[in-house]
Amino acid sequence: MADDPWVDDASAALLTDQYQLTMVQAYWREEMFETAVFSLFVRRLPEGWNYLLACGLDDALRYLERVRFDEDALAYLATLDGFSADFLGWLRDFRFTGSVDALPEGTPFFAEEPILVVEAPLPEAQLVETFLMNQVHLQTLLASKGARVVTAAQGRTVVDFGLRRTHGTDAGMKGARAFWIAGVDGTSNVLAGRAYGIPLNGTMAHSYVQAHDDERDAFRAFSALYPGTVLLVDTYDTLEGVRHVAELADQLGPDFAVRGIRLDSGDLAALARDARHILDDAGLGSVGIIASGGLDEYEVARLVRAGAPIDGFGVGTAMAVSKDAPSLDTAYKLTSYAGRGRLKLSPGKEILPGHNQVWRQDRDGRAVRDVIAPATPRGDVPHGRALLRRVMEHGARVEAGREGLDTIRLRVRAETDRLPSAIRSLEPAHPPYPVVVGDELRQRQQRLAERLKPGSAS
Amino acid sequence: MADDPWVDDASAALLTDQYQLTMVQAYWREEMFETAVFSLFVRRLPEGWNYLLACGLDDALRYLERVRFDEDALAYLATLDGFSADFLGWLRDFRFTGSVDALPEGTPFFAEEPILVVEAPLPEAQLVETFLMNQVHLQTLLASKGARVVTAAQGRTVVDFGLRRTHGTDAGMKGARAFWIAGVDGTSNVLAGRAYGIPLNGTMAHSYVQAHDDERDAFRAFSALYPGTVLLVDTYDTLEGVRHVAELADQLGPDFAVRGIRLDSGDLAALARDARHILDDAGLGSVGIIASGGLDEYEVARLVRAGAPIDGFGVGTAMAVSKDAPSLDTAYKLTSYAGRGRLKLSPGKEILPGHNQVWRQDRDGRAVRDVIAPATPRGDVPHGRALLRRVMEHGARVEAGREGLDTIRLRVRAETDRLPSAIRSLEPAHPPYPVVVGDELRQRQQRLAERLKPGSAS
Repeated sequence: MADDPWVDDASAALLTDQYQLTMVQAYWREEMFETAVFSLFVRRLPEGWNYLLACGLDDALRYLERVRFDEDALAYLATLDGFSADFLGWLRDFRFTGSVDALPEGTPFFAEEPILVVEAPLPEAQLVETFLMNQVHLQTLLASKGARVVTAAQGRTVVDFGLRRTHGTDAGMKGARAFWIAGVDGTSNVLAGRAYGIPLNGTMAHSYVQAHDDERDAFRAFSALYPGTVLLVDTYDTLEGVRHVAELADQLGPDFAVRGIRLDSGDLAALARDARHILDDAGLGSVGIIASGGLDEYEVARLVRAGAPIDGFGVGTAMAVSKDAPSLDTAYKLTSYAGRGRLKLSPGKEILPGHNQVWRQDRDGRAVRDVIAPATPRGDVPHGRALLRRVMEHGARVEAGREGLDTIRLRVRAETDRLPSAIRSLEPAHPPYPVVVGDELRQRQQRLAERLKPGSAS
Repeated sequence: MADDPWVDDASAALLTDQYQLTMVQAYWREEMFETAVFSLFVRRLPEGWNYLLACGLDDALRYLERVRFDEDALAYLATLDGFSADFLGWLRDFRFTGSVDALPEGTPFFAEEPILVVEAPLPEAQLVETFLMNQVHLQTLLASKGARVVTAAQGRTVVDFGLRRTHGTDAGMKGARAFWIAGVDGTSNVLAGRAYGIPLNGTMAHSYVQAHDDERDAFRAFSALYPGTVLLVDTYDTLEGVRHVAELADQLGPDFAVRGIRLDSGDLAALARDARHILDDAGLGSVGIIASGGLDEYEVARLVRAGAPIDGFGVGTAMAVSKDAPSLDTAYKLTSYAGRGRLKLSPGKEILPGHNQVWRQDRDGRAVRDVIAPATPRGDVPHGRALLRRVMEHGARVEAGREGLDTIRLRVRAETDRLPSAIRSLEPAHPPYPVVVGDELRQRQQRLAERLKPGSAS
């Protein structure tokens, strides 16, 4: 099975912004092949979010290992204005030969911290920008959103029902992966089950009930075929639906094995309470209640706080598109070329020059502060754990670049448990988690900025 | 070139919610093979949006023509609990054999109006739900968002720069397609250029400027290679950058052919004015100004209203993820089975039963009202143009199901021009565009609802 047809297809090399190709041809003409360092980071967290989870590295590395321009791609580029035959010949042999340092997937991180540091000959590091950003942005966004929903559910089951509303097929697949990493318990997406080994989950749709002339017939038929199923009770009248489940239990006696009911509309807290009473009165204490229908982390948290007797949540759209924050302010910026730190001075778009590392400092098992500093400082190495790891060398993954999803999922659990509780919370943390730029790096940035100011010799 | 690797790959059949497969097995066991009608529609428009553009039909039909379960898919399903060998044998021969009526892509439409009506044996119409929703949702959303940006630009150039922040690769491709249909003038996405014939567009990135030791060197080298290029001027100091462009023009004399400059940060209106002065003073009246950097339709409209001398807009994230409304409240609902209309009564989730059509009524070349009514009414056929067309019969496209992008793009122009100006506006229209449910259909819905109310015989 292709993990990602877009990547495996040779056309993936063209899945880029045109300017990457024009810039690369210019670098080639100018013989600017020296080593560049690009840093992929998030400028600001979405409003109200306290941390993000790094995600998407596996697909980024898969792309870097495979990206090639095949004859079809080159033939297409030849039809565009501006690419010389010589350059297209060079592009035919293009391979990514650089190194990558990265936050392991599932690592909580904060604004300005590098997620990925690419070090490669300038044209290579430039050319891969668009695809790396596309994948790391999507998966980091959705993993971070998924973690918020998982936090809200406080241990209750959460299932990803989002495939119909994710932005296309790739987001449906990568979303299922990201949510699973973030701690969601299963997905409805069958292909994601196959591709990633995520537990599959699903109940029934209203159409199944509607297609039968009587809701009771639908419940009987479905549970005869799937004894441990979950029955959807709100097609006509929710509590009447619950009573139909109780009736069925009465008729089937010991053969009744239905595991749960699903509420998909209305006042979920009130309906869950009433449904719980009806089920309990019928001796169906083991039949659980699943809620779905427009849920986001705030609504899940509200239901949990209200003590609604809900055992699991099916979460779709709001998580699938990260509705309150459907994008992150990601950047992939040149921070060094030919051994010299690089900056830009555009307002609000600061860069930390050079090849940097993030050190996380713990106290009593709690993360208390991150320090961003040069990966190889001239002065003291900051205290703490260095978070970025070398995952690719000379264009090939090294051991740390091959992690199973279970490892990543456990990391999320362990590393988010270490965050201060205010940071794990859904409420905006005041103050936010402290991230400091080390003195050496800050001074370097200031010296560079001085030199680049208009009017100064550069 | 594969138009969509996910569809062409046999694994696309598994890109569905698990419950589709369990319901289909149940239908198969119960021999529920009679004709079902499902309607795909949007329950409510996003807040502040006055209309949507239908989009995604081509990919939906491509899927319906191709969906198959190959041996790998069947082998995976066999590992899951609950699917019988007999059923998997039936699934091996699964083909979509039904018909589809649809709004032609690019048709403006409103809440409750069917975009797609699928009529097929129940298991077939059920099984395809997830994929159809995924594609129609994404493309309708992005085309509609794109149309808002195009409206805001009032004839100025708009280019799609969104690939790095679309939700994955599929959204990057389908987004470029949807934006082009909506009237955007080009895309930076090279593969979309190849796949869809969309004009490519691009300038240069900050990294190109940064990699040179002096901005002037970067401008000189880039314009030597690409004489008609657009130079990015805000890496260090925007107006200094503009003066560097003027310097270059002075040095090159008649060889200077730079087409434009791009502003990507700061107060775009003020900077555009100052840049325009510098350029004009240097005799560079033909050098245009492109603005980018966090633009959405409101910001574009503001810049246009302010009379900022901006000739074109590069729009990325806000359009690419439809930031203010990253999802639509789409539904794919069973409206008829075995010749009987079907409803659900869940609060806020009304269905119009049966197989319906939308008639658009024009007056003096302006659309004034839509009527939703049975496709084959017993009473009078409503006045107006019937919008839904038969695009697929017996699982194969008919002529109306094969439209080129140019046709669709022209339709958008023609049909949005016909909308009342208040509806075309970015401001919320009060009252909204009138959509009425015809009497015959409303009565049918009420009769059905009466019959389905709890307690009534069904």
